Amino acid sequence: MDVRDCHQGYHQGMVRWQPDSRNRLEQAALALYAERGFDDTTVAQISERAGLTERTFFRHFSDKREVLFGGAGALQDLLVGAVADAPPSAAPLDAVARALDAVGAVFADRREFARIRQRIITGSVELQERELIKLATLSAAVADALRQRGVGDPAAGLTGEVAVAVFRVAFEQWVGGTDRRDLTQLMRVGLDELRSVTSGA
Amino acid sequence: MDVRDCHQGYHQGMVRWQPDSRNRLEQAALALYAERGFDDTTVAQISERAGLTERTFFRHFSDKREVLFGGAGALQDLLVGAVADAPPSAAPLDAVARALDAVGAVFADRREFARIRQRIITGSVELQERELIKLATLSAAVADALRQRGVGDPAAGLTGEVAVAVFRVAFEQWVGGTDRRDLTQLMRVGLDELRSVTSGA
Repeated sequence: MDVRDCHQGYHQGMVRWQPDSRNRLEQAALALYAERGFDDTTVAQISERAGLTERTFFRHFSDKREVLFGGAGALQDLLVGAVADAPPSAAPLDAVARALDAVGAVFADRREFARIRQRIITGSVELQERELIKLATLSAAVADALRQRGVGDPAAGLTGEVAVAVFRVAFEQWVGGTDRRDLTQLMRVGLDELRSVTSGA
Repeated sequence: MDVRDCHQGYHQGMVRWQPDSRNRLEQAALALYAERGFDDTTVAQISERAGLTERTFFRHFSDKREVLFGGAGALQDLLVGAVADAPPSAAPLDAVARALDAVGAVFADRREFARIRQRIITGSVELQERELIKLATLSAAVADALRQRGVGDPAAGLTGEVAVAVFRVAFEQWVGGTDRRDLTQLMRVGLDELRSVTSGA
């Protein structure tokens, strides 16, 4: 820990760790990526903008790409947890529908953040690649959670892919368009559309 | 063109371009990636193994990653063409089913090549990322072909994702396992499974 990370000061003579340094680094990075572009932003600049050291940056993130993907682990836990917690009688796609509802709730108040983040990612092939790796990991995790519910293959793998496809298509509508529906609604509509498409309607 | 590209010799006094240099570069690259690993193979080594120059390599491929993904353009043309050529009355998923059959036919005699290629890609995050970008591009192209058939959104986007999901899951079974069914059969089973999953069965 570096003393520059403590400029909110001392407390009863003890150096206190600031619990919001991660959040400050995220805000600073997002602002800089939007202002200067992702490629032209350095870790040094992000740290400086956040009033923290580079050492602190690297305690939270492995590189400057990772700042944009820090939420992927939590998203995966949420999806996997919701699939696992669905009633034993729930069909695979119903378990996925519950998981997507849980995800929608978490994103509800993050549309502006998601919009800015999406613009940054769209502007860089490197970031698009990282995004796709994260989504593929998410799909594999959902498939594994379904296998643990006794779903066989290839149904588990396909349903994992479907879950991420519905999330992804709805997410793009949500951040990209002028649609006033929230992410949960858009994902529900997506699932219904998918059911309709696959039933040959 | 470099004279080293012509070691099959002169023909009636004229330097003849060898139409198989691309193929030779592919074979050399695949062999070296499998022997030494992707990261430890250079363009110079690939060119030397193929008996060609680096200049020739770069006339065919933008970098050493691209050797493994040279078929993506043809695959996309095939999928998009088959979707476009489906009878006007065909439902979106039926158009996709035809396109997947066309793809399966093309891959029929390439299982060993696909197996080696897959092992190389699985061993490198950089290659997995490129693979995912290619698959995402494929999905977007199928979605666009469906839109041109009058399919609306989000159905077009979702069906594009479904097409690639079925291809991907079947492809992994085909190259990874001991399953004796061919790619076409595995994709048909996948589509049926998907229909069954989404109908809540």
